Amino acid sequence: MSTAVSPLAVPFPDMPPIAGVAFATAAAGIKYRDRRDVFLALFEAGTTVAGVFTRSKCPSAPVDWCRAALAGGSARALVVNSGNANAFTGKKGRATTEAQGALAAEVAGCRPDEVFIASTGVIGEPLDAAKFAAVLPEAAQRVAEGPWIDAARAIMTTDTFPKGATRRVKIGETEVMINGIAKGAGMIAPDMATMLSFVATDAAIAAPALQAILSDGVEASFNSVTVDSDTSTSDTLLLFATAKAPGATLITEPTDPRLEDFRLALDEVLKDLAIQVARDGEGARKLIEVRVFGALSDASAKRVALSIANSPLVKTAAAGEDANWGRVVMAVGKAGEPADRDRLSIAFGDIRVAFEGERDPDYSEAAASAYMKNDEIVITADLGLAAGKARVWTCDLTKEYVAINGDYRS
Amino acid sequence: MSTAVSPLAVPFPDMPPIAGVAFATAAAGIKYRDRRDVFLALFEAGTTVAGVFTRSKCPSAPVDWCRAALAGGSARALVVNSGNANAFTGKKGRATTEAQGALAAEVAGCRPDEVFIASTGVIGEPLDAAKFAAVLPEAAQRVAEGPWIDAARAIMTTDTFPKGATRRVKIGETEVMINGIAKGAGMIAPDMATMLSFVATDAAIAAPALQAILSDGVEASFNSVTVDSDTSTSDTLLLFATAKAPGATLITEPTDPRLEDFRLALDEVLKDLAIQVARDGEGARKLIEVRVFGALSDASAKRVALSIANSPLVKTAAAGEDANWGRVVMAVGKAGEPADRDRLSIAFGDIRVAFEGERDPDYSEAAASAYMKNDEIVITADLGLAAGKARVWTCDLTKEYVAINGDYRS
Repeated sequence: MSTAVSPLAVPFPDMPPIAGVAFATAAAGIKYRDRRDVFLALFEAGTTVAGVFTRSKCPSAPVDWCRAALAGGSARALVVNSGNANAFTGKKGRATTEAQGALAAEVAGCRPDEVFIASTGVIGEPLDAAKFAAVLPEAAQRVAEGPWIDAARAIMTTDTFPKGATRRVKIGETEVMINGIAKGAGMIAPDMATMLSFVATDAAIAAPALQAILSDGVEASFNSVTVDSDTSTSDTLLLFATAKAPGATLITEPTDPRLEDFRLALDEVLKDLAIQVARDGEGARKLIEVRVFGALSDASAKRVALSIANSPLVKTAAAGEDANWGRVVMAVGKAGEPADRDRLSIAFGDIRVAFEGERDPDYSEAAASAYMKNDEIVITADLGLAAGKARVWTCDLTKEYVAINGDYRS
Repeated sequence: MSTAVSPLAVPFPDMPPIAGVAFATAAAGIKYRDRRDVFLALFEAGTTVAGVFTRSKCPSAPVDWCRAALAGGSARALVVNSGNANAFTGKKGRATTEAQGALAAEVAGCRPDEVFIASTGVIGEPLDAAKFAAVLPEAAQRVAEGPWIDAARAIMTTDTFPKGATRRVKIGETEVMINGIAKGAGMIAPDMATMLSFVATDAAIAAPALQAILSDGVEASFNSVTVDSDTSTSDTLLLFATAKAPGATLITEPTDPRLEDFRLALDEVLKDLAIQVARDGEGARKLIEVRVFGALSDASAKRVALSIANSPLVKTAAAGEDANWGRVVMAVGKAGEPADRDRLSIAFGDIRVAFEGERDPDYSEAAASAYMKNDEIVITADLGLAAGKARVWTCDLTKEYVAINGDYRS
């Protein structure tokens, strides 16, 4: 497995504390030696929660647990581990989540359905609940309001850098913070695109409104990023709202106009984290943004954009710095969405390479090839039919991706 | 670009002549130097034809041409070139197919709509019709009944070995031959899975019946093979029936019981060719057969099988000889088809690795890992729900695939 940091990595931001959130990390030895692989967060009473999960038909035991716990709308603890996904582990897997829930409820002084659980790593290996019993009570004794980078590091698997995002924003007169962390590098595709992401705010928002805001926010962020078209059994995004910002008053409607800036800021945090996942795509050396315009609808545009972003031939061309726009035509054509070959235009960056169904008359192979040497590439396809548009992010497909994934378990 | 022959290559079969078919190859210098890149076949009067094409929304000019020509049901000439796909070439591309059609009609002494055209290679580059004018009249002077391997070689692009299949079978008392050739190594996915394949028989079958038989035959062959999930703009499968077998009488109904053995033999030829395409998948070192049982329907089983066969994580695990059945669970889950995690069983070859939603109690990592060292791997997923089943073929995803496709145009 590669240990080099992605050339597309961005620095971890300076993340201030969130009132009502305290956490600690611990080394439970689940898979990795000599690193912290468990993240325990405790939330003060009154914290609401929302979540979005993988659409896999074979979800992990922790995903089942969280879906059930979400019904209560209240959160007091979050337990995350890396190294083992507790997925496809049958009855043993369910017993482990139950033990984790009971244990965390005990240390947090709450009900089990106020405990949220996420696991990431190898599928199909039993996850030993005793590993958590050995570290959670001790970790609960030393929870603190930071540093968030420790949490981001504890949840990493094949990630090469910790991922965080933060925003400060006002809800009416109340200033609130939003902090988020994420992990994910492969097995990344809608829906959900992330593997794991946890976002916390000190805003005061009722659980149903929080869920509506979060579900809306994932579409243009985590559901618009793909590394390899593979969808994890474990993908989990949780948003916790502690209501502890000074002066916060409870908002119950997602459409409340006071939430407008908050929603924009949350969307930015989610998009920032999602793009960091693409930046850390396994073996990635280039970040690719795919923009589709002129489709019959936004949904149609998104399917075309994902067809381009998931195409191994487009992604290997990017890796080879080859302005091979013929493969973009291919990917538009295979999407199955309404398209008219003779109205299609394609650009790499600002360089239009194809126009109305054939090579642009002004096409310069040299200019297009020079553009492809950039670390960040924008591919635009204009279908020329109507006003539907979409934007998704992916990375190139390199030999390093094959190396990482051909030798992941060993 | 690699020049090594795929380790999964199979020998070209001994292919006897087909009465009523004569052909020649020529070096037109379309892209390659010093190799024959044009294949001209002439069919005697009375030859019927059927075809199946890419479902790409951006098909190549030759695909448009063939679709229109098929309406006549009669074939006298076939012109194929490698090196340039004549795809996304706009009006120039259409003009080239028209020139090719007129030229071949002249040398064959037939109508243009009895000419069939296929092109494979780079997309978006204009294809110069003059290249054909320079070689077709001369090639038509030296057509012969063989050798078929020359035709198979002339249509290759990144293929590392020529692909052919042949069967002898009876229709009633008449003995007939079926010969087929194919090319394709990447950009291979349903529908159609092949890039180009041409099959000829001396049977006498009316065009509508021939079309019904061919359309039926592709489902379990070319539409069940995938290399990289990418669908070409140019995929073309044509079946020609010359009616020149001694004693052949015209059959007009696809359900005619005399066709039973013929249909089986044709299905075998198509499947043989399709699997050869997977064997020559770009960079392939392992042939992977995915079998799905227990789905709600055959169609559902096929979608699950293709989800497994197209998963980069399954394919890189195979490349790494890693018995990573967790990724098979992932791929079943992401297919979106009805599945119940707790009834799912997975096997590599005869080694059951997962049973009823968890690791098989008798699982032996050593035995599974040893099995993965084979050149040919069978992955079986039993969903345990109903009787739907499907079988598809693919290959592993290697660094060589990335190398070939990261540097294809240069």
